[in-house]
Amino acid sequence: MWIYEKKLEYPVKVYKADLRMAKYLMAQYGGPDSELSAAVRYLTQRYTMPTNKAKGLLTDIGTEELAHWEIVGTMIYRLMKGATPEQLRREDLGAYFAEHDRAVYPVDASGVPWTAAYIQATGDPVTDLHENMAAEQKARTTYEHLIRLTDDPGVKDTLRFLREREVVHFQRFGEALVDVQEELTRKKIF
Amino acid sequence: MWIYEKKLEYPVKVYKADLRMAKYLMAQYGGPDSELSAAVRYLTQRYTMPTNKAKGLLTDIGTEELAHWEIVGTMIYRLMKGATPEQLRREDLGAYFAEHDRAVYPVDASGVPWTAAYIQATGDPVTDLHENMAAEQKARTTYEHLIRLTDDPGVKDTLRFLREREVVHFQRFGEALVDVQEELTRKKIF
Amino acid sequence: MWIYEKKLEYPVKVYKADLRMAKYLMAQYGGPDSELSAAVRYLTQRYTMPTNKAKGLLTDIGTEELAHWEIVGTMIYRLMKGATPEQLRREDLGAYFAEHDRAVYPVDASGVPWTAAYIQATGDPVTDLHENMAAEQKARTTYEHLIRLTDDPGVKDTLRFLREREVVHFQRFGEALVDVQEELTRKKIF
Amino acid sequence: MWIYEKKLEYPVKVYKADLRMAKYLMAQYGGPDSELSAAVRYLTQRYTMPTNKAKGLLTDIGTEELAHWEIVGTMIYRLMKGATPEQLRREDLGAYFAEHDRAVYPVDASGVPWTAAYIQATGDPVTDLHENMAAEQKARTTYEHLIRLTDDPGVKDTLRFLREREVVHFQRFGEALVDVQEELTRKKIF
Amino acid sequence: MWIYEKKLEYPVKVYKADLRMAKYLMAQYGGPDSELSAAVRYLTQRYTMPTNKAKGLLTDIGTEELAHWEIVGTMIYRLMKGATPEQLRREDLGAYFAEHDRAVYPVDASGVPWTAAYIQATGDPVTDLHENMAAEQKARTTYEHLIRLTDDPGVKDTLRFLREREVVHFQRFGEALVDVQEELTRKKIF
Amino acid sequence: MWIYEKKLEYPVKVYKADLRMAKYLMAQYGGPDSELSAAVRYLTQRYTMPTNKAKGLLTDIGTEELAHWEIVGTMIYRLMKGATPEQLRREDLGAYFAEHDRAVYPVDASGVPWTAAYIQATGDPVTDLHENMAAEQKARTTYEHLIRLTDDPGVKDTLRFLREREVVHFQRFGEALVDVQEELTRKKIF
Repeated sequence: MWIYEKKLEYPVKVYKADLRMAKYLMAQYGGPDSELSAAVRYLTQRYTMPTNKAKGLLTDIGTEELAHWEIVGTMIYRLMKGATPEQLRREDLGAYFAEHDRAVYPVDASGVPWTAAYIQATGDPVTDLHENMAAEQKARTTYEHLIRLTDDPGVKDTLRFLREREVVHFQRFGEALVDVQEELTRKKIF
Repeated sequence: MWIYEKKLEYPVKVYKADLRMAKYLMAQYGGPDSELSAAVRYLTQRYTMPTNKAKGLLTDIGTEELAHWEIVGTMIYRLMKGATPEQLRREDLGAYFAEHDRAVYPVDASGVPWTAAYIQATGDPVTDLHENMAAEQKARTTYEHLIRLTDDPGVKDTLRFLREREVVHFQRFGEALVDVQEELTRKKIF
Repeated sequence: MWIYEKKLEYPVKVYKADLRMAKYLMAQYGGPDSELSAAVRYLTQRYTMPTNKAKGLLTDIGTEELAHWEIVGTMIYRLMKGATPEQLRREDLGAYFAEHDRAVYPVDASGVPWTAAYIQATGDPVTDLHENMAAEQKARTTYEHLIRLTDDPGVKDTLRFLREREVVHFQRFGEALVDVQEELTRKKIF
Repeated sequence: MWIYEKKLEYPVKVYKADLRMAKYLMAQYGGPDSELSAAVRYLTQRYTMPTNKAKGLLTDIGTEELAHWEIVGTMIYRLMKGATPEQLRREDLGAYFAEHDRAVYPVDASGVPWTAAYIQATGDPVTDLHENMAAEQKARTTYEHLIRLTDDPGVKDTLRFLREREVVHFQRFGEALVDVQEELTRKKIF
Repeated sequence: MWIYEKKLEYPVKVYKADLRMAKYLMAQYGGPDSELSAAVRYLTQRYTMPTNKAKGLLTDIGTEELAHWEIVGTMIYRLMKGATPEQLRREDLGAYFAEHDRAVYPVDASGVPWTAAYIQATGDPVTDLHENMAAEQKARTTYEHLIRLTDDPGVKDTLRFLREREVVHFQRFGEALVDVQEELTRKKIF
Repeated sequence: MWIYEKKLEYPVKVYKADLRMAKYLMAQYGGPDSELSAAVRYLTQRYTMPTNKAKGLLTDIGTEELAHWEIVGTMIYRLMKGATPEQLRREDLGAYFAEHDRAVYPVDASGVPWTAAYIQATGDPVTDLHENMAAEQKARTTYEHLIRLTDDPGVKDTLRFLREREVVHFQRFGEALVDVQEELTRKKIF
C-alpha cells in the first residue's frame, strides 16, 4: 500500500504562458511512453519477478513514476490555469476544453485516451526487464522532444530532472537484468 | 509523491484452486469499473477541485484505490501461481497464458486492455463528484458480481472488505458534493 | 421500434461561419459525453430495469437523445457545408476533411472514434441510474463548455435548449432512483 | 426526430435455454457488423447524400436497423434472464456477468466494446453507398453464422427474418447507387 | 513469402515545404482507409478464398498495397525531414513531434493509432469481395481529398498515380466477384 | 516494393485437430507481440535510421516478419479448416465463428483487434533499436508460451523455427545498436 506525502518530488516552475506546451506535455501524462505507462507497467509486472530484489526495484521505480506523473500533471494544470476559452481556442486546446475544460485527463498529445496496449507483462523476467529498458529509452526520448518544444527555463528545468531519472532507471533495470540472468543460471545448475 | 509501505491494506486469503476466478477478478484489475479506473480517475481529477478539502479527499481515496488495485493483483497472482499450461487451457485462461503467462496485466475479464475512455475529468467539481459517486456504485456492483462467482471463503472475505470500502467512498463523495455546492453558492453570493 | 418524424425537436440556426465550432461540436456528436453516448446508454440499459415505469423512462429519454444527436449532427453539417478544403485546412479541419470530407462522423472533438467504453450497463438499476445522473451532469458540462466556445447567437440558443434538457433528464433520473429504491425495499419486505 | 412505438418489428421467440447463444448474438448487438453499426452508419451518413430520396432511404433503413438492434437486444435479454452465476460461469458468460450481470451491453461476441472505427462516412455518396452494400453483405453473413450456431427454431426464425431484411437493404442501396450515379452524371452535363 | 526490391513502385517528388500535408497524408498511412488497411485486409482474407485465382488476386493486390504504403511513408518522411521543432509546432505537428519526432508512425491524420477494427474478414468470399470493392472506393475518395489539400505538383502526381491504382483494383475485385459467384453457382449445380 | 514468392519460408505441418490452438496462435497473428506488430514496427521505423545498413536491416527483418505472419496465418487456417460450427462452439471458437467464420483475422488470442498502440517509432535510432530488442524478447516469450500449449509435433516444430528466428533478430538488433552508437559518437567528434 502507499502513503501520500503532500509534496512534489521535484518543484514545478512555470515562467511563461505557453498553452500549447500543456498539450504537448500530455505525451508524458497519458501518451504511449508517459509516466502513467511507466507506473502501471512496473507496478503490474512486479508480481512475477523471481527475486525479492527485483520485485522491490519494480515497486520502487513504479512508485517514483507515480510521483513523476504527479509532477507532469501539475505542470499541465499550471500552464492551463486561468486561460480563457478564447485563448484555449487560439492555442489549439479548444477540442480539449470542450470535453475537459482545464482539468487534467490522461490522453496523449493528440487527444487519444491512454490504453494498456502501450505496456506489456509477459511473466518472463528477462523479457519484462528488456521491455522496461526500452520503455525508459522511449520516455527519455519523449522528454528530449518536449525540452526542444519549449523555451521556458522553468519547464525545461523540471523536464531535465525527469529525463535524468529515466536514464538512472534504465541503468538500474540493466543491473537487475544481469542479476536475474545470474539467478536463472544458478537455478538451472543446482 | 507516494511512499510505499510493504504490506497490503487487507490480507489476501485464497483457499481453493479456482483458476477461472482469476480471470473474473480482472474485472476489478483492468476492467471498466476496476480499482485502476478508480485510482487514475481520482488522482487525475483532483487538480481542478475548488477546495483543499476536496483535493485532499480525492488524493486520499485515489491513494487507497491504488492499495486496492494491489490487493486485487495479489489475489489474481495467487490464484494463477503454479498452474500448468494444461490447467490454464482447461479453465479458459489459455488465451491469457499465450500472451502473459501467469503475470498480472490490466485487462478486463474478457481480455480487453484498460483504456482511459472508462473515466472522465470535466473540470466541473459538481459533475466530477457525480461521476465519482456513480463510479463507486459501479465498483460496488462489480464486487457483488464477483462475490457471487466464488465460494472460496477467503476470496469472498477480501472482496467483501473491498466492496465495503466502495460504499464508504460513495458516502464521502456525497458529503464532498454537499460541501462543494455550498462553497460554490457562497462564492456566488459574495 | 421507432417511427421517424421528419422534423428536428428544436430548430438549428447558424448565423456565423465558424468552422472550428463544427470540430468542437463533435464533443457532443461522438465524444465521451455525447448524445450518442446518452442514446446508446439508455436504450441498452432499459432491459434490466425492474419496473415498467423505469423501462419506459429510459426508452423515452433514450429516444429523445437520438433526436438531440440529430440536432447536433445538423449543426455540424450546416457549419461545414460549402467550406473549401483551403478553409478547412486553415480552421484545423484538414485532418477531418482528409478522411471524411464534410460528412458527419461520430468522433470526439480531437478525432477519436466513439467507443462503447464510454458507457456502462451493470444490471443493477440503482447503479445504472447513478451512472445516468452522472452522464447528464457530464453532458450538461460539455454543453456549457461549447456555449463558451461560440458567440453565434443561433448556435448558442440551440445549445442552451439542449443543455436545459440534460438538467430535466437529471431530475427525472433522480426521481426514478427514488422509485426504484422504494420498489426494491418493498420487494425485500414482502 | 423519432417516436417510439411500443412493439417489436418482429416477434422474439426463445424455446431453448442456450446461454452461449446470448454471447454469440452480441456479434449483432455490439460487433463490427452489428445492427448498431448499421443504424449509426446510415443515420450519420445521410447528411451528405445528394438527393432527398437518398437521404430518406438512409433515414428509413437507419431507423429500421434501430428496431433490429432492439430485437437482438431482446433476444439476448430473454436468453440470459433468470440464469444463475453458476450457469453463466459454465456457459462462458462468467466474464460478462462480472462486469454486466445479465444486462445488455454493446460488445462483440468476444467482449470488445463497439467502436465507430467499424463504420465510415466519406462525404462521397457513391463511396458511402458501396460501404453500405458491403455492410449489408457482412450483416447477412453474420446472421448466417448465427443461424448455424443455434438449433432453437424460435431464435432461428427471428434471425432468418433479420437476415432477409439485410438482403432487401442491399438491393435498395444498389438501386440508390444507380440513382445517385445518374444524378451526378446529370449534374456534370448541365 | 516476400522479397524486397529496393525501389519504389512509383517515384516520390516533393517540391514544396508543406509540413501540414505530412499530417494529412497520415490518412493514407495509418488511417481507416489507408494503404495499411488495404494490405492487411487483402493479405489476411486470402486464405478462405474459394479459387486459386481469387487467392492469387488478393495476394497480388495486397502486395502492391504494401508498396503503396511505402510510397506514402516516403512522402511523409520527405515532407517532415529537416523541419525544426518550431516549424512543426507552427504547422500543427507539435503533438506528433512530442511522441514520434519526424519518424513515420501509423496513425490517422488526427493521431489515432491504426486498428484492425477498420477491416474485416468474414469467410464468405462474396461478402469479402464486396468489402474490398467498398474499401477501394474509400481509398480512392481519400486520395481525392488529399489531392485537393495540396498544390504541390509532385505530391499531386504521386497521389494521382495511387488513386488510379485504386480504381484498377476496384475493377479487378468486381471481376473476381463475378468469377466467385459463377464458381459458387457451379458448385451448387453439380 | 515487394515481390511475392509463392512459398512459405518454413513448412507448416499440422498433425492433430486442435481447434483451441488456432485461437491461441492468434497471439502471434494479431496480438501485442505478434508477427504483424513486428513487421509493421520495423517497416515503419526504417525511414529515420541514420545509416543505410540500419535501414537495410530493418527492411530485411520487417520483410521476414511478413513471411512469419504468413506462416502463422497458414497454421491458423489449417487448424480451423473443415471444422463444423458445433466443433467451434465446443472449442471456444463460437464467438470467433460468429464474426469471422474460419477466416483468418488479426485479433489477439482473446479476440481484441490489433492496434498500432502496441508499437512505437520515436525517431531516435538508439531508442527504436531498444524497442526492437524488447520486441524480439516478447515475441520469443510468446512462442515459448505457445509451444507449451500444444503437443502436436508439427505445430511445435514450426513454432520452434519461428522462435529461433526471433533470437537471431534480437542479436542482429543488438549489433545494429552498437553500430549506430558508434556512428553517432563519430558524428559528435567531427
